Amino acid sequence: MIDLENGVFLEQVEDLSVRKRWPDVRDMLTLLEPADIAAVLAELPEDRLPLIYRLLPKELAAEVFVEMEAEEQELLIRSFSDTELREVLEELYVDDTVDLIEEMPATVVKRILRHTDPETRRSVNEILNYPEDSAGSIMTTEFVDLKRDMTVSDALKRIRRTGSDKETINICYVTDPGRHLLGLVSIRTLLLADEDDVIEDIMETNVISAATMDDKEDVAQDLSRYDFLAMPVVDKEGRLVGIVTIDDAIDVMEEETTEDFEHLAGITPTDKPYLRTGVWETVKSRIPWLLLLMLSATFTGVVISSFEDSLAACTVLMGFIPMLMDTGGNSGNQSSVALIRSLSLGEVSFSDLPSVIWKEIRVAVTCGAILAFCNFVKLMLVDRLLLQNTDITIWVAAVICLTLIFTVFCAKVVGCLMPMISDKLGLDPAVVAGPFITTIVDVLSLLIYFQFAMLLLGL
Amino acid sequence: MIDLENGVFLEQVEDLSVRKRWPDVRDMLTLLEPADIAAVLAELPEDRLPLIYRLLPKELAAEVFVEMEAEEQELLIRSFSDTELREVLEELYVDDTVDLIEEMPATVVKRILRHTDPETRRSVNEILNYPEDSAGSIMTTEFVDLKRDMTVSDALKRIRRTGSDKETINICYVTDPGRHLLGLVSIRTLLLADEDDVIEDIMETNVISAATMDDKEDVAQDLSRYDFLAMPVVDKEGRLVGIVTIDDAIDVMEEETTEDFEHLAGITPTDKPYLRTGVWETVKSRIPWLLLLMLSATFTGVVISSFEDSLAACTVLMGFIPMLMDTGGNSGNQSSVALIRSLSLGEVSFSDLPSVIWKEIRVAVTCGAILAFCNFVKLMLVDRLLLQNTDITIWVAAVICLTLIFTVFCAKVVGCLMPMISDKLGLDPAVVAGPFITTIVDVLSLLIYFQFAMLLLGL
Repeated sequence: MIDLENGVFLEQVEDLSVRKRWPDVRDMLTLLEPADIAAVLAELPEDRLPLIYRLLPKELAAEVFVEMEAEEQELLIRSFSDTELREVLEELYVDDTVDLIEEMPATVVKRILRHTDPETRRSVNEILNYPEDSAGSIMTTEFVDLKRDMTVSDALKRIRRTGSDKETINICYVTDPGRHLLGLVSIRTLLLADEDDVIEDIMETNVISAATMDDKEDVAQDLSRYDFLAMPVVDKEGRLVGIVTIDDAIDVMEEETTEDFEHLAGITPTDKPYLRTGVWETVKSRIPWLLLLMLSATFTGVVISSFEDSLAACTVLMGFIPMLMDTGGNSGNQSSVALIRSLSLGEVSFSDLPSVIWKEIRVAVTCGAILAFCNFVKLMLVDRLLLQNTDITIWVAAVICLTLIFTVFCAKVVGCLMPMISDKLGLDPAVVAGPFITTIVDVLSLLIYFQFAMLLLGL
Repeated sequence: MIDLENGVFLEQVEDLSVRKRWPDVRDMLTLLEPADIAAVLAELPEDRLPLIYRLLPKELAAEVFVEMEAEEQELLIRSFSDTELREVLEELYVDDTVDLIEEMPATVVKRILRHTDPETRRSVNEILNYPEDSAGSIMTTEFVDLKRDMTVSDALKRIRRTGSDKETINICYVTDPGRHLLGLVSIRTLLLADEDDVIEDIMETNVISAATMDDKEDVAQDLSRYDFLAMPVVDKEGRLVGIVTIDDAIDVMEEETTEDFEHLAGITPTDKPYLRTGVWETVKSRIPWLLLLMLSATFTGVVISSFEDSLAACTVLMGFIPMLMDTGGNSGNQSSVALIRSLSLGEVSFSDLPSVIWKEIRVAVTCGAILAFCNFVKLMLVDRLLLQNTDITIWVAAVICLTLIFTVFCAKVVGCLMPMISDKLGLDPAVVAGPFITTIVDVLSLLIYFQFAMLLLGL
């Protein structure tokens, strides 16, 4: 295997291309998988990209094209002659053509559509009509369909005849003349069956399918849950209109996971990989949340300011503010992240709310008690006895430890309620519960702190 | 399709089983996919589980068994007769048997191994010897191997003869007599080729493979990157010893993603789903980080305490501490999460460090300037003019805004350095960079704040 990480391979390709040793460049590139060739081409100077791309054998070229980022695809298309463009488009699967069209500017899209054959154009338009997050938008219309009365040998003949244009032949679908989905049969079943067996008798009839308007994330999750290689997609009338293959499902899962991470960290998701996102684009994806959270943190400031005089009177309390706020924030985060992840894996649903809250309450009380106990011991032994800090009376320690218990309790309850409720309301739990948990818990912890301080220290 | 979410299905199954209408129970269950049957069985009372499990047809029963959680598997095995156990074990693929053995207590393991046939036992032991995170530990040894001099028709015959015991027949591997991997051929290529074609001429020889000791996460990532359905695993001598199939790779990816989420939120990962984890287990996975972070937050407290007198003299500064700390934490989080995700997707590697830092610096300066500007306007217009807060002089505003700029700068640099460096050192970026970023940035932001306060306000 060739190691691309260290850049030696890329240097060799560049060197050979400067010396115009094109056959050698081609031989080197064809050793790689399409995804790796695309990565190598992306590193080359823009003006040399079309030149080197043209060296690739036709079929491989199309596979590499699919793996490229939009920028390079556009650059290539602009350099293509009409014949070249038609050749690449012919090799693409329908779902890849759709992806391409979605990324390109209008003028390029027009040119692409002009050079697509009418049947593909119809499929492309159909898929483009489905909403962005739907199963319909990521499906491909190129699947193997069989009839119930075919024999296994008929079916294998049909696969041999049409299979080369299909995205997968591993799972074949059985439809009636009205294109309604009747069942499925895997290529393994076909191969292991007798030549004379009739499809109807060997097909699996109890088929799980997705609807065109289903959320693509749910479809991807189901593919993973059931270990499917492809999921059939049916329209409202139960007609089979396409399939979602496992590789596209994995892309959806990775995309959604990245979005969850970004939401949690207060980043507006962009589709591009980190190094491909420009500085200004990155700023635009980060600044709204920073501003919003900065604004909401002023509420925390208001709480502190309104207790300014008490704090000035008992300055020892100030030093514990960050610890209490952070511990609250961390406790809340633990619960909200655990639930956001469980919700997105489908392990937990809204009907589990009572058991979730009951569990979090017990966890909160236990964690709160342990933290308070450890803190009390530390305050009494380290701060008071060892460091001789006489400001830390037993009453101050009590205020701090009671605040810990109540803060952890509130944080964990808020941390599990917010994701569950936002999911129920059809909002993305990661957006709602992620960055705001800290701010909410900050305010709560300070209010609890000052309440106990007034109560026990009489400030 | 049957909706399991609302519980109606489960009620019907329970009702039928109470009335001992076993054939009806079986008919209802066999409508479902194995993963769903396992979910339904998990909801049933423990004493009825073995009874209902026995209703399932043999092959389906084994598929359901694989989908169950360890607790139910153990319960079933303890209720099995030796014959029943042997029947289930015979239907399992080697990698599923390994998973089972890893979860069961020693006495159960002994019984399982006693009833496994010698060949499987050898494979199981071999796989068990690989380290937990290696490709070897998740591979299966049941793949289709072909010889280079076979014709397509020979190959198809071989697949028909042995295919039913293989985890997948979609990709077949070509080996020499010494079991070295020579190439691969997909079932599609076989079906579309002429019957007389020789495997050698149609196989793909430029095969990407994994080594037994490779990190399983990298192997899963490669399967996704190259859109493979299976990845061959070779030992040090280049001999093909197993394959990792896409469904197992997806499980690895989901598991690793969940771990990343948990690490970021300061949770020690457990393998169990949220609702399956007991209260005490959850506490154990959360309390260490809470304690550690509580302790580290006392440093922040020490910084505040050492400026206690200055703060008491200029109390207006106190109210802005949470805002500065939070904004710093959020800025740092954005960078670290973006990089942790990019590292785990393989989009960024250590060699990109200079361009990553250069990008983050420019983003930090832009974000810092925008935040400072907005804050300055807000302080001057809202706090000073509108709310007539005379404590907020232009110098106080300058201290706050300069702190913002420098804090965001430090936060973003630390936020990108920590994940990159820990990844380089072979540590998990999510563990190192996740929860600690906040604490580090807290301390930094306070030090910067008080430095500017002393400089500009002469405290």
